Amino acid sequence: MERRDTRDTRFRLTIEYDGTDFVGWQLQTNGRSVQGIVEDALQHLFGQVVRVHGAGRTDAGVHADGQVAHFDLRTHLDAETIARALNAQLPEDVSIRHAEEVDAEFHARFSASSRAYVYRIAQERVSLERRTHWIVYAPLDHDHIREAVTRMHGTHDFVAFSKFSPKQTHHYCHVFSVVWEEGERVSSFHIRANRFLQGMVRCIVGGLIQVGRGRLTPGRFAEILSARDRSEAPMLAPPHGLTLTDVRYDPDERAVVSAIMRELASASR
Amino acid sequence: MERRDTRDTRFRLTIEYDGTDFVGWQLQTNGRSVQGIVEDALQHLFGQVVRVHGAGRTDAGVHADGQVAHFDLRTHLDAETIARALNAQLPEDVSIRHAEEVDAEFHARFSASSRAYVYRIAQERVSLERRTHWIVYAPLDHDHIREAVTRMHGTHDFVAFSKFSPKQTHHYCHVFSVVWEEGERVSSFHIRANRFLQGMVRCIVGGLIQVGRGRLTPGRFAEILSARDRSEAPMLAPPHGLTLTDVRYDPDERAVVSAIMRELASASR
Repeated sequence: MERRDTRDTRFRLTIEYDGTDFVGWQLQTNGRSVQGIVEDALQHLFGQVVRVHGAGRTDAGVHADGQVAHFDLRTHLDAETIARALNAQLPEDVSIRHAEEVDAEFHARFSASSRAYVYRIAQERVSLERRTHWIVYAPLDHDHIREAVTRMHGTHDFVAFSKFSPKQTHHYCHVFSVVWEEGERVSSFHIRANRFLQGMVRCIVGGLIQVGRGRLTPGRFAEILSARDRSEAPMLAPPHGLTLTDVRYDPDERAVVSAIMRELASASR
Repeated sequence: MERRDTRDTRFRLTIEYDGTDFVGWQLQTNGRSVQGIVEDALQHLFGQVVRVHGAGRTDAGVHADGQVAHFDLRTHLDAETIARALNAQLPEDVSIRHAEEVDAEFHARFSASSRAYVYRIAQERVSLERRTHWIVYAPLDHDHIREAVTRMHGTHDFVAFSKFSPKQTHHYCHVFSVVWEEGERVSSFHIRANRFLQGMVRCIVGGLIQVGRGRLTPGRFAEILSARDRSEAPMLAPPHGLTLTDVRYDPDERAVVSAIMRELASASR
């Protein structure tokens, strides 16, 4: 443990959690949230209310092994000691993987340039991995899925693939990378974008599985996306297949997204 | 579904299970066993008591993704149909991965030439994989562990690394392969042997972690093994890190083991 002067410090956490028994990341009046559990642990350790800000608001049942959050604390303890103390306090379905001091300007959510998710699908019955995989028994046409996946590269209005949210001013997301990884027993969908709308990855995966089962052509999938009509949205894939794996804070990514959003704004004027 | 004549058939199953909520493979008067759950499902489906014989008697909390079992049934159904029907009946922590018809001479336990286990160790706190990994926080000397592992190749009397069992006539096991796989976040111990004594892998791993933590030298580890004294046995590693991954029925492996056992018997005469 490194001794320091007592001072106001912003700490950044990397957090893993098994979402099975959570109502989601975000604090709610009813139910066990990850944010609430981490805030409770901090309050227990430091005797004060500490607000924790997360980068991604994962839904109930969604997991994370790379969620990022920050909080402010007046303390003489260093980040590593705080991580250890938190882990000793937290239930076993939440782990602090890393903690570090950051500048006061850092904001887990607003400074983030991109988030990455993986959605895991088992193509036969699994027991050991049942909590992190959606079991899909039907044979899948992986070529068709890959074709649909390719259409999502770049900037799109994803309103058709999201839950209704009155807070959104627009629904453009820039997809930095998107990959369908085909496996014999397990396949997975990887996506990194500057931001995600509520239910977006689960809705995309729901659509991709329809494509894989031959119930939707890759072309129709692309049409649903570009029609921007939520009534055409595919059914959501279940939450337990989804894991938030990484959050980036990359100035280059931010610059790319800012330029694209400026262009969209001037085009719509 | 393939239609066949109704006849007595022996079926071989490959079974996966999450051992968390089981008292082990073997049927017990109290508690939920994997064997009991599969027998219940067969009884429910076919209206008769069907005895299921497993290849490896995994302890409470130990997992499997390659357990093998057999049973006899007078039926016109083919193996694939039976697997599907069983899966529809089984709870989600047990899965039939494969089923096939076998000769009446096949015995899941007595025909097996070797079993393979993996023991998984997380070197930092994990939440998503906490049910299949033993978390060991102490830094490990992987070179020392590898040195101890190397000493286990070949045929040894493993009595010092087993629980007492009055049924054993001898404690020789032939280790076909044994590997320590070092990773940054997760390491794993892989072992294939003709047979395993009760608690053997967990006891070996308990010892290896002592070696890794510097509490036992690789030489002392080898001495404990060769001293054949159970009072020197290391503490058992917890069951949830252990998974039975494979059972082989290989005539060449059987021939090797038979030759070794004959030699040991003649040497002790």
